[in-house]
Amino acid sequence: MILIKAGGGAGLNWDGIAGDIAELREERPVILVHGANAIRAELAARLGVPVRTVVSPSGVSSVYTDREALEIFLMAYAGLANKRIVARLIARGVAAIGLTGVDGRLWEAAPKKDLYVVEDGKTKLYRDNLTGRVEKVNVCLLRTLLRNGYLPVLCAPAVTADGEIVNTDNDTASVVLAAAMKIKTVVFLFEAPGLLQDVEKPETVIPRVAREEIGTYLPCAKGRMKKKLMAAKKALESGVREVIFADGRTEHPIQDALAGGGTVFS
Amino acid sequence: MILIKAGGGAGLNWDGIAGDIAELREERPVILVHGANAIRAELAARLGVPVRTVVSPSGVSSVYTDREALEIFLMAYAGLANKRIVARLIARGVAAIGLTGVDGRLWEAAPKKDLYVVEDGKTKLYRDNLTGRVEKVNVCLLRTLLRNGYLPVLCAPAVTADGEIVNTDNDTASVVLAAAMKIKTVVFLFEAPGLLQDVEKPETVIPRVAREEIGTYLPCAKGRMKKKLMAAKKALESGVREVIFADGRTEHPIQDALAGGGTVFS
Repeated sequence: MILIKAGGGAGLNWDGIAGDIAELREERPVILVHGANAIRAELAARLGVPVRTVVSPSGVSSVYTDREALEIFLMAYAGLANKRIVARLIARGVAAIGLTGVDGRLWEAAPKKDLYVVEDGKTKLYRDNLTGRVEKVNVCLLRTLLRNGYLPVLCAPAVTADGEIVNTDNDTASVVLAAAMKIKTVVFLFEAPGLLQDVEKPETVIPRVAREEIGTYLPCAKGRMKKKLMAAKKALESGVREVIFADGRTEHPIQDALAGGGTVFS
Repeated sequence: MILIKAGGGAGLNWDGIAGDIAELREERPVILVHGANAIRAELAARLGVPVRTVVSPSGVSSVYTDREALEIFLMAYAGLANKRIVARLIARGVAAIGLTGVDGRLWEAAPKKDLYVVEDGKTKLYRDNLTGRVEKVNVCLLRTLLRNGYLPVLCAPAVTADGEIVNTDNDTASVVLAAAMKIKTVVFLFEAPGLLQDVEKPETVIPRVAREEIGTYLPCAKGRMKKKLMAAKKALESGVREVIFADGRTEHPIQDALAGGGTVFS
């Protein structure tokens, strides 16, 4: 089984991704997790409620999610992005089913209402942040769908034990999912050719990173990449054999990733 | 098995509906179909793209759906409304799963791109209307979910055989679903106490209507009610034994409906 985590950047080649998935699943079961950052940002701007990115004291960036931000999140991720991707796969004969972490408690998360952020050099505490960390995966539901020939197309948000919808980091949730489903290969597709030595130079892709080396790259990584590296580290520690960071913009993003393009963590 | 079709009006008591469903499904399997008209209209207004309702030459009103309207539809129905309802049920311990007609080809529709409408007394033809009529239901998927203890929470849009997302009438789709699943009882919940003799007077609820009488009410019915009556007629002709029109605003909408409140068509 293979888990594809496709980012939410506007540049991803979804035609290529859908085509690759249609071929790949002839060989082995596939689960797809997707983002929708670009769609969310566009919608938020149209509604006059810009996405508010905050940075934690340890330098990890995330989105502050109040009630209105969560509604926009739902519309962009569960509404627009998820159904477009499902339809794209359906058009290629793949029996795709789109679900969020809320559906059937697919991703149950522990709420973390308190959010410490660094603003203007000072650490502040925001309460009532509607996010959570995925701790439980409904493995039975996924197995039932896979056994019946369906391809799960998943995205945040998640749900708390009390049934509250909470935003959650898709990358982290993907890793928890991979561990729960005992998935051996996880491919992260985004708008870069892999982990870069120099973010300004696409030709500086680092082809292989051993598990114990990831820590050395963490201090230099910024923003989303820091989160992805932490996710890769966690994945390898949880039983995943191989994590691949690869370019989601090529003609065949998944084929290229599996052929050794991008960065392989193992 | 029972099918609940809850309208998309802002006045529906979703707490009561969720509570009733949690109790009802102890006795028999439930499928829920929901609308989201009010949410859709609010979002469309915020985005500056008002919902465009048109009337056919036979007097049936529907929404003209171009690409932008379909996107708003997806965000309101699949994104916001569906996940909120699912979370509400999850909070009550119901293993709800939200799906649109696109997911797993749940509702496959024949496209009807040409739309004849009456405007200013003249009949006009609009092309590229992104709607369709549901003709095929993925019964296997629904049975699989029900057998595994899940409660399907469904809404439009549907999908064509080619994988194109199309808007579809939720009421009509519900009837096609009921027939395919051999469901005997269908409850329509909306913002009125049932079928009224005089729409201005809530106390004029017609308690019972025989199948062969429905035709006599059709000419007087207006807008959405005309569509609902046609759906009720079609349902009874397709093997449904009982269709109930009832008030979705009471403390226990479904309990009340099953206790004989509203209008029973049989």
